[in-house]
Amino acid sequence: MSVLRTVTATLDRWLGIEPLYAHCDVPCGIYDPYQAAVAAKTVFTMDKKLTELPTPGASAQEQLEHRNTVVRMVQTKESHAQICKQELLILWSDYFKPEHLAMFPDLHETFWKAAKLCSYNKQHVDVAKAQELMDAVAKISDLFHKAEAAKKK
Amino acid sequence: MSVLRTVTATLDRWLGIEPLYAHCDVPCGIYDPYQAAVAAKTVFTMDKKLTELPTPGASAQEQLEHRNTVVRMVQTKESHAQICKQELLILWSDYFKPEHLAMFPDLHETFWKAAKLCSYNKQHVDVAKAQELMDAVAKISDLFHKAEAAKKK
Amino acid sequence: MSVLRTVTATLDRWLGIEPLYAHCDVPCGIYDPYQAAVAAKTVFTMDKKLTELPTPGASAQEQLEHRNTVVRMVQTKESHAQICKQELLILWSDYFKPEHLAMFPDLHETFWKAAKLCSYNKQHVDVAKAQELMDAVAKISDLFHKAEAAKKK
Amino acid sequence: MSVLRTVTATLDRWLGIEPLYAHCDVPCGIYDPYQAAVAAKTVFTMDKKLTELPTPGASAQEQLEHRNTVVRMVQTKESHAQICKQELLILWSDYFKPEHLAMFPDLHETFWKAAKLCSYNKQHVDVAKAQELMDAVAKISDLFHKAEAAKKK
Amino acid sequence: MSVLRTVTATLDRWLGIEPLYAHCDVPCGIYDPYQAAVAAKTVFTMDKKLTELPTPGASAQEQLEHRNTVVRMVQTKESHAQICKQELLILWSDYFKPEHLAMFPDLHETFWKAAKLCSYNKQHVDVAKAQELMDAVAKISDLFHKAEAAKKK
Amino acid sequence: MSVLRTVTATLDRWLGIEPLYAHCDVPCGIYDPYQAAVAAKTVFTMDKKLTELPTPGASAQEQLEHRNTVVRMVQTKESHAQICKQELLILWSDYFKPEHLAMFPDLHETFWKAAKLCSYNKQHVDVAKAQELMDAVAKISDLFHKAEAAKKK
Repeated sequence: MSVLRTVTATLDRWLGIEPLYAHCDVPCGIYDPYQAAVAAKTVFTMDKKLTELPTPGASAQEQLEHRNTVVRMVQTKESHAQICKQELLILWSDYFKPEHLAMFPDLHETFWKAAKLCSYNKQHVDVAKAQELMDAVAKISDLFHKAEAAKKK
Repeated sequence: MSVLRTVTATLDRWLGIEPLYAHCDVPCGIYDPYQAAVAAKTVFTMDKKLTELPTPGASAQEQLEHRNTVVRMVQTKESHAQICKQELLILWSDYFKPEHLAMFPDLHETFWKAAKLCSYNKQHVDVAKAQELMDAVAKISDLFHKAEAAKKK
Repeated sequence: MSVLRTVTATLDRWLGIEPLYAHCDVPCGIYDPYQAAVAAKTVFTMDKKLTELPTPGASAQEQLEHRNTVVRMVQTKESHAQICKQELLILWSDYFKPEHLAMFPDLHETFWKAAKLCSYNKQHVDVAKAQELMDAVAKISDLFHKAEAAKKK
Repeated sequence: MSVLRTVTATLDRWLGIEPLYAHCDVPCGIYDPYQAAVAAKTVFTMDKKLTELPTPGASAQEQLEHRNTVVRMVQTKESHAQICKQELLILWSDYFKPEHLAMFPDLHETFWKAAKLCSYNKQHVDVAKAQELMDAVAKISDLFHKAEAAKKK
Repeated sequence: MSVLRTVTATLDRWLGIEPLYAHCDVPCGIYDPYQAAVAAKTVFTMDKKLTELPTPGASAQEQLEHRNTVVRMVQTKESHAQICKQELLILWSDYFKPEHLAMFPDLHETFWKAAKLCSYNKQHVDVAKAQELMDAVAKISDLFHKAEAAKKK
Repeated sequence: MSVLRTVTATLDRWLGIEPLYAHCDVPCGIYDPYQAAVAAKTVFTMDKKLTELPTPGASAQEQLEHRNTVVRMVQTKESHAQICKQELLILWSDYFKPEHLAMFPDLHETFWKAAKLCSYNKQHVDVAKAQELMDAVAKISDLFHKAEAAKKK
């Protein structure tokens, strides 16, 4: 969603402290892998929490609390895997430009696999795959910062 | 929302691999460039209608009707350009598999350019670019149907 | 009229965007029972899959995967039953005109019952009732295509 | 949306003070024409405000304020016409039961026309038609309260 | 001021539409604690229903129906606790003005605690806490009506 | 606590997903004034861009482009003012605890005024007021970081 993207945008400036909307009217600061990284981390956290949930006691009340928690965690995982995917695809489709393909010949492959990991993480409760997703986002984050650095030369 | 629907389809295939709507004319049905094509067409139609809107009369009432229409058409264009982009990226990230890259070496490039066209069409009222978007979706639709045909061999 | 066109409006309406061009050059294409049919089919598929889910093994991991799947399928059923209902009610309220009542004296009853079936299918996991919903949508689809055919005479 | 409906639900109990979820598991108290009436009133108010907006001064700032206001009012009108329609269709499809058709032979026609008025009001800035919509909702409200009264006998 | 008017604004705000007419002729109607009260009541009802759900029979079908119901009730509770919170915070931030602080020195504390109760009720299935939430909203409703009464003097 | 973690919760809450793990091992990271600051900055940027938009040429095409841009900027401003408000109110209602009131006696007032500024900025195109909003969020950010620092002692 454009709202998501716009919010994401300035996250990088928080870290890098570049002026907002620096030298172009559709600001170069607008893109950032930060939101995707947070979402991937949230998927991971939900998987971990779901996996570590203590077996509830036998009382009806404890059973209910447990179920309330599971439903809410599954929903949180679902929405953050979706956010992660959207954020990555915004970077791929809007931030990266033809000149970046020369710098990163595996650009398309990298994003493609990361997007497929998002879908996998929706469908499963799998801590190892959530870790893979975080790693994939970290790799993309690295490409992004290299592209940013290249801009400043 | 299209996100929900798209998730659904993935679910189907992940679990049962049954074609949703098996015996209809959209058979493998779960992935389909159809929605993207419709959205691209809607963007085109909005651009065309905006361009051809008659100059309103001078009365306050005619002016108001005119403005009501412009706001609604811009919003419709915006949301359909977004839908088009989402639908295309779902095809790219979920439907197409590594084996398709051998069949369509320009797969990534094709989707990348189409996604960029969606963003352009949000930012402008440009009939020619909306036509380009429709053509890009038609090309993707062609890839899709070739991939489907290959499955059945 | 191309198939493409016929779905355009469905999308619009699915998004809560009222068709803007009721008497314009995209008229017959604006309404379509297709989306409702897909949604009904999805409800049916979710019911079927839920009913046929294998009992998970005793391991915590298998239990978790199972619960992840159930929550996601119930949510998918819910949203598609809602989409089906919305799509049908758009056809009823916007597509069908007074002249169609003469052609289809049971028009109102037909839609009324189908809408009630959508609500029923949210509240239950009932394959037979999901089948009834698909049949109801198929009947409505038939009315729609008869109305379209009458236009062209 | 189910949220909308559920919220609406208790509005009638505010007026009628019936226990929530009284004697059925899909509570008889849940339906109410109140939300639709409020939405129709909002459409009317937006039309009136749009019609009465003073011509802005010539300064760029006044022009901007004016445009900000118009866009926001058109959007408010759009969403409330949509809410009105949804609320009415929920009453029609879920609240009214076959036994009510005997009491109100024009039930279907009444709702059909009201729904069509909602669509009209989206597409235009027309105070008289917004008044018609409020009247249509008032008529439906009357049917509703008669149906409620009949229940208590 | 008619009852109808008083709820208009609540709807607006629920939809994220900021009231456009703060100093206009529909002023007293714009804010209302009614929506929050309904939402709190819905949270209470969901907790009660969840707590009282009969243990399902051993058949797979009964188990499925039971799970369908639990997921739907947890979701309904979640969304209504969120609506309740939003509605309360709109009253606090938009309706109450500096002059009300003199009338109600504990205004901020009252809202703060009520908002925290909303969050608690999302995270738990706790009938007693849902009752506390209803009481908190009732207290706020009382402040609101006192503020309204003061206006008319 | 990593930077990554600290934003996770903001996202959750922005999506209406209440943090599930209030006393768990991801505690200090869950709340963050960052999202609100980005949203306030976006409101400011939209006001600035709207104010500085060049007068379009007389051609129909230039007029259309101009209107497309205005509608989109007003919408972006609206949604970010709303996000800013939501983010601030989450901090106020969920992050800050009774012990913080002793540290920050003007806590409630500070948030109250900032929330009112969000509403003002929706209703107007006013660069100075958007600057005030950014300042208000910066002040809140300062309170937040002081509260965080106090935790670690």
